[in-house]
Formats: sequence, structure tokens, C-alpha cells
Amino acid sequence: MPLDYPAPFLELARELRRLPGVGPRSAERIALWLLSNKDARPAALSAALASAPAAVHPCRRCGFFATGDLCEICAQPSRSGREICVVEHATDILPLERTGTFGGVYHALGGRLAPLDHIGPDQLRIEPLVARVREEAPCEIILALSADVEGEATTNYLREILAPLGVPLTRIAHGLPAGGGLEHADQITLQRALSGRRPAGERQPG
Amino acid sequence: MPLDYPAPFLELARELRRLPGVGPRSAERIALWLLSNKDARPAALSAALASAPAAVHPCRRCGFFATGDLCEICAQPSRSGREICVVEHATDILPLERTGTFGGVYHALGGRLAPLDHIGPDQLRIEPLVARVREEAPCEIILALSADVEGEATTNYLREILAPLGVPLTRIAHGLPAGGGLEHADQITLQRALSGRRPAGERQPG
Repeated sequence: MPLDYPAPFLELARELRRLPGVGPRSAERIALWLLSNKDARPAALSAALASAPAAVHPCRRCGFFATGDLCEICAQPSRSGREICVVEHATDILPLERTGTFGGVYHALGGRLAPLDHIGPDQLRIEPLVARVREEAPCEIILALSADVEGEATTNYLREILAPLGVPLTRIAHGLPAGGGLEHADQITLQRALSGRRPAGERQPG
Repeated sequence: MPLDYPAPFLELARELRRLPGVGPRSAERIALWLLSNKDARPAALSAALASAPAAVHPCRRCGFFATGDLCEICAQPSRSGREICVVEHATDILPLERTGTFGGVYHALGGRLAPLDHIGPDQLRIEPLVARVREEAPCEIILALSADVEGEATTNYLREILAPLGVPLTRIAHGLPAGGGLEHADQITLQRALSGRRPAGERQPG
């Protein structure tokens, strides 16, 4: 048996290697740092890892990260009864929130329709969305899903399901990204930018 | 106050961000993965982080990682009384060991002389090295330090200190790296490769 690091070291490197974006060499380097560097605080990281999963869970209503029953957004009374913005993942909420231009609430589906991966409507939080729309009577439902094939399919499916509820239904604009030149945009982006054109008198936000 | 992730999440991301090679975006991504992915095992990583620092410590004799008093290398009786290979860091030992061509023991200095960083001979494990040489009477001392200015300075210093002990003193070869063409080698490497030339009849190991 060739010589190697002691077992507890290898165990630590093995667990680190499972993290996204951490390869075998990075894992070894991080483990060495954690055990050799006097600035390292392995105990603090260990404690954070032990406590966070129990303390953080999905918001009962929208699916965003919460420590209580409702997340910080759903807990704000001023936001209820307004727009519901439907996103794929809970992680899509903060980027939208950071734009500072949306004052409604969110609903994370937990993914998008992907028949090849066996993800159908029942695997997503679509039923709870319909129930929420009935109960909260929002002034608008905004679909903010990915601009790819599966995102489009999910948008279309939701449109069929939600249209009968009688709430105004919109989707976020697709077009040229900010700072993007026409020469770098692909054909589909330009197609959507053209078909989504608006009167030139309207002011762009931001 | 702008909305952000819950405090336990941010605490976890902050600790992850302190790891080498993990930036703010990676830290957030890893924390999201740890809390959202059902394949993640935050508890296992937490346990490994909690147990490894207490279980792993430097070998009393050579400074390599050990779980007992001596590391796996120093604990092998067949290796004592042979060559002592002097390296800068404990992490330099395994790469040398993996070559499979060295059957002696090691000695990690814990760094190299760096006056600008206030690292002098007293900050390194030089005194214990001298004591070891006196006690173990090795057949040879091999200096395997970095091929840069500080490594050279440390090698020269050790040569002065160790020469009076009467043990044959060698240093690892500097020259063209394996697979490296002459056109990619810098001037100093070629200089050392030339001055370290050996009779062409000798067979290269490996």
C-alpha cells in the first residue's frame, strides 16, 4: 500500500471534493490549509455546516429560504395582494429582488418541466401556485422563467393552467441584454428582440 | 436594509469564503448547494471538519501529518538510519514519496528563510534537524528545497550548519523538467542544467 495522508485527513478531503467546483487537487489543498494554517477556523466552518441546514428551510408560501414559517419577503404585509412573480428556483428570487424594481411576492416552482429527467407538473409546485392565486387574488402573475426550451415549455404550460383563473398574466421581456452589441447576439435573441419591440417613446427603466 | 439570505446561510457562506480558492460567488454557490441539494451531506463535512484537526498533528520527528506520536514513515523501522531528506513543508513529502525512489526519512523545516517576512533560522525546525542528525547518524542528508532565491538561501545556510557534522550532504538536481523542451526553459534553468551535466553513459532513472 503506497503511503498517503492519515485517514481523518483523507476523509476531510473526500467530503470537500463533493462540493460543487472543488476538484481533487483543490480538495487536498483546502484540507491542508484547514489543518496547517493558523488563520483557518475549521471549528467555525464545522459549526456553520451543522447549524445552517436545521435553521434554514423553504418558506411555506413561496419557497425562498426562511428561518421562520414565512420568509422575509412573505412576512412583509405591504407585499401581499400584489403581483406574484413565478420563478424556477428559490435562488432566482434574490437576483430579481436586488433590482429593487419589484414590490410583489414570489413563487418558486422548484424546477421546470423536463420530461427527459422525469420532471412533470406533479414534481413542481404548480398545484400550490394555483391555490395561492385563488386565495391571495394577486393583481398580476409574472412568469419569470429561463429563456431556453424547457423554460418556454414550462411558461406555456403555466399559461394554460393559469389563464382560466382570470388574473392578468405577463412574462418578463426577452431581448438584447444590457451592454450587449447586436454583433454578439444570437439569431433567436434578435428574433425575440424584434418581435418584442415597443414604442420608442417609452422610457427604459434603470 | 436590502433583502438578503437568512443569517445562518450568510454565516455559512462567510466561512466557506475563507477557504483558499473560494471567492464570494463560489461560496454562495456552495452554500446553496449544501442547503438545497439532496445529495449534499453537510453533516458529514461538518463532522470531518470537527474531527480531523484533533486527530491529525505533525509527526514529532519529521513534521509530516500523523495520527499517532510518529507518522507512518517514521514508524517504519526499515527506514531509520538511512538518508534524511530535508524539505520546506510537510506537504512536500508526499510528492517525493510518490516517486517510489526514496527509502529514507524526511525532515520538514516548516518553511524557508525569508528575512522580509521575519522568518529566520529560529522560526524553522533547524535545531531539531541538527539534533536528529547527531542522534540518528544518517548515511546522507539530501537537501530538497525550492529552486528559487529563498530556497537557495536556505540551502546555503543549512550547508554551513550541517557540514561540520561530517555526514555526506547532497542537494537534488536542478535542470530541465521532464517533457520540457529547451525552447521553453528560462535562462537560469538552462544555466543550472548545463553546470549540472553528467556523463552521458549514466542511465536516467524513471
